[in-house]
Amino acid sequence: MVQNKSVIFLASPTEYPVPGKHFAVETRKLNTELKENDVLIRNLFLSLDPYLRGRMRDSHIESYIPSFQIGQPMVSGGVSEVTESKNLAFPVGSIVTGTIGWEEYTLVSGGQDLRVIPDARESKIPLSAYVGVLGMPGMTAYSSLKLIGQLKAGETIFISAAAGAVGQLVGQMAKRQGLRVIGSVGSDDKVDFLLNELKFDAAFNYKKGSILENLKAAAPKGIDIYYENVGGEQLEAALEVLNVHGRILACGMVSQYNTPTPYGVKNLMNIVGKRITIRGFFVTELAEECEADFAKDVGSWLIKGEIIYREDIAEGLDSAPEAFVGMLQGKNFGKQVVKIADL
Amino acid sequence: MVQNKSVIFLASPTEYPVPGKHFAVETRKLNTELKENDVLIRNLFLSLDPYLRGRMRDSHIESYIPSFQIGQPMVSGGVSEVTESKNLAFPVGSIVTGTIGWEEYTLVSGGQDLRVIPDARESKIPLSAYVGVLGMPGMTAYSSLKLIGQLKAGETIFISAAAGAVGQLVGQMAKRQGLRVIGSVGSDDKVDFLLNELKFDAAFNYKKGSILENLKAAAPKGIDIYYENVGGEQLEAALEVLNVHGRILACGMVSQYNTPTPYGVKNLMNIVGKRITIRGFFVTELAEECEADFAKDVGSWLIKGEIIYREDIAEGLDSAPEAFVGMLQGKNFGKQVVKIADL
Repeated sequence: MVQNKSVIFLASPTEYPVPGKHFAVETRKLNTELKENDVLIRNLFLSLDPYLRGRMRDSHIESYIPSFQIGQPMVSGGVSEVTESKNLAFPVGSIVTGTIGWEEYTLVSGGQDLRVIPDARESKIPLSAYVGVLGMPGMTAYSSLKLIGQLKAGETIFISAAAGAVGQLVGQMAKRQGLRVIGSVGSDDKVDFLLNELKFDAAFNYKKGSILENLKAAAPKGIDIYYENVGGEQLEAALEVLNVHGRILACGMVSQYNTPTPYGVKNLMNIVGKRITIRGFFVTELAEECEADFAKDVGSWLIKGEIIYREDIAEGLDSAPEAFVGMLQGKNFGKQVVKIADL
Repeated sequence: MVQNKSVIFLASPTEYPVPGKHFAVETRKLNTELKENDVLIRNLFLSLDPYLRGRMRDSHIESYIPSFQIGQPMVSGGVSEVTESKNLAFPVGSIVTGTIGWEEYTLVSGGQDLRVIPDARESKIPLSAYVGVLGMPGMTAYSSLKLIGQLKAGETIFISAAAGAVGQLVGQMAKRQGLRVIGSVGSDDKVDFLLNELKFDAAFNYKKGSILENLKAAAPKGIDIYYENVGGEQLEAALEVLNVHGRILACGMVSQYNTPTPYGVKNLMNIVGKRITIRGFFVTELAEECEADFAKDVGSWLIKGEIIYREDIAEGLDSAPEAFVGMLQGKNFGKQVVKIADL
C-alpha cells in the first residue's frame, strides 16, 4: 500500500470542466501488490491534451474512444520511473512512457502499453519531450504531414492553434519543406513567438479583429493547406481563403469541445466550388507507418537544434485540473505538461 | 439573319431567380454570316442544371466558372442539329452536343466545344440522353464513383436529391457494385420511384419528419458514403450517421444556392472523431480519365435496359425560365430538360 495522490473524474461537464466539480485531487491508498508481469511506476510527467475532453463525456454517449470512468483517476500519456516490477521488459529503475493515471503511482497491469525510453538518464533530451515533440503531438504533426499532407514547396499552409503542442511542429516541419507558413494564436506573445522564434512567415492573434480579414492579409495569394486544430470561425475563414484544390487536415476542433451550442459553418459550398478535400485523422492510425522515420528525423532535428519545442510545465498534480482547463481555453503557451515528480 | 427566340440573362438574383426579372424570353435577330470554321446550329434539347445558378451571380464576385453576361443569352449544355457550316468536322445535318445558348439558333464560333453524336438519327437512344445519362450528369455519377468513390460491396451509400439528374444514376451504379442504397427526395412519388423502379433499399421524403431520424431509420448500421447534392441539414444528418472512415463525395449543395442566409452546419467535429474524408469535385476534372469506359459501360447498360433514366421534359423555350426555377426548388422529377424543337 502507498499513499497515492490522484485526480479523480467526478462528473461529465457540458461546457468547460470545473475543478472540484468534474474532477478533483484526492489522496487514496494504492494496493501495490504485483501479479506476474505487472509494473508499478512512479509518474514524473503527465501530458494534457485537448482530446481528453472527449473522454470526459457522459459514458452513455457512444464515441470512438472510451469515456473516463466516474470515481476513477483520469488517464493520459506520461513519463514514469519503474519502482517495482514483475515484468522482465521493464526492470526497476527504467524510464518508461505510455498511458498513465493522473496520479503519483500507477500499477500497470501486465506492463500494458508501456515503452522503455533507452538511455533516458544519460540523454540530453528532457524527459518531458517524450509526451511532446518525441511523443504523441510530435508524431501527430509528423505523420499527418508525411502521410496525408502532400506538401509541395512553394505552397502556403495556415495552422490554427499554431503555438500549441502540434501546431508549432507543423509550422516548423512545413517550413523545412519550403512552404510559406501562417499561424493563428490567441495572444500577441504567441504571435511574437511564431514570427521571431519559429520564423513563421505570418501570424495573427485571432482575438483581435476579424479572423477572415487577418487571414486574407496574411495570405494575399490564398492558402493551399489548412491544418485544423480549432474549428468554428477559423474553419469558416480558411474555407473562404483556400485556393482551388485546397486541402484541410482535420486534427482537432478545440473551440467546439466545451460548448453545448457549436458554431454553424455556413460556407461549406466552397468544398464543391474549389474542389477541396478535408480529411479527419487520428494519430493512432498513422503512427505505425512512420515510427522509424519519426524517431530518426525528429530526434536528430531536436538534438541539432533545428526545431524548437516550447512546453508549458505546470508544477505538481494539484495544478493539473486548472492547467487542463487553461489548455482548453488556450491559456497554455506551448505543449501543456504537468510535472508530477523529479526523477 | 434569322429570328431567334432566346432566354436573356437580365440581373443577378440573391435568392431564387424570378422569370421576367432575372431572365426573360426575347426574340432577337441573329446574324448568321459564318466565318471560317463557324457552325450554325438549330437547338433541339437544352440541359437545365443546378450549377447554372452559380453563373447567374454578380460578375464582380470571383468564382471558378465565369458568370453569365447581362444582356446575353443564358448558356448550357444542349443537343442541336447543324444547319449551316464552314467547318469540315461538323457537316450540315449532323447532330451535335456541346455548349449552346438558351435560344433557337446558336452561331458557334469555330465549332468550339461541339462534338458530333455518331449515328444519332438511326439510334434507339433518344437525343435528350446526351444531356442526361450519356452527358454531363451521367459522367458526373460515373466518374466520381469510379475515380474517388472507392465503393466496396456491402457498404451503404446515402444519396440526397436521389431522383435527380445525377442521384438516380449514382444509386443504380452503386447497386450494381453491391452496395446498400438509400435515397432522400422531396416527394412521396419520388420515394415510390426510388423504391419500386430504381430498386433502392430505402428512401425517404426529407420534407416529412426529421431528416436525421429518417436517415437513422433507413440506415440502422450507419452509412459509409454520403453522395452530397443538397448540403445544409442533409449534410448535417449524414455527418451524424456516417461510420468511422466514412466518405463524402461533394457534388453539389443545391439547398444553399438560393439563399442569402446559408445553413450553419454545427457537427463538423464528426470529421475528426470519425476520420471522415470529404472531397469536392467537378466532373470536368474527372471526365477525361474515364471517357472511353463511360461510353462503353453506360451506353451498354442503357441499351440493355439495365439502368433507368427518368427525364422531366419541359416543352419549348418559353418554359425554360420556370422549369429552371422549378428544378432549383426540386419540382422536377428526373433530369430537367427543355425541348426546344423537333429534329
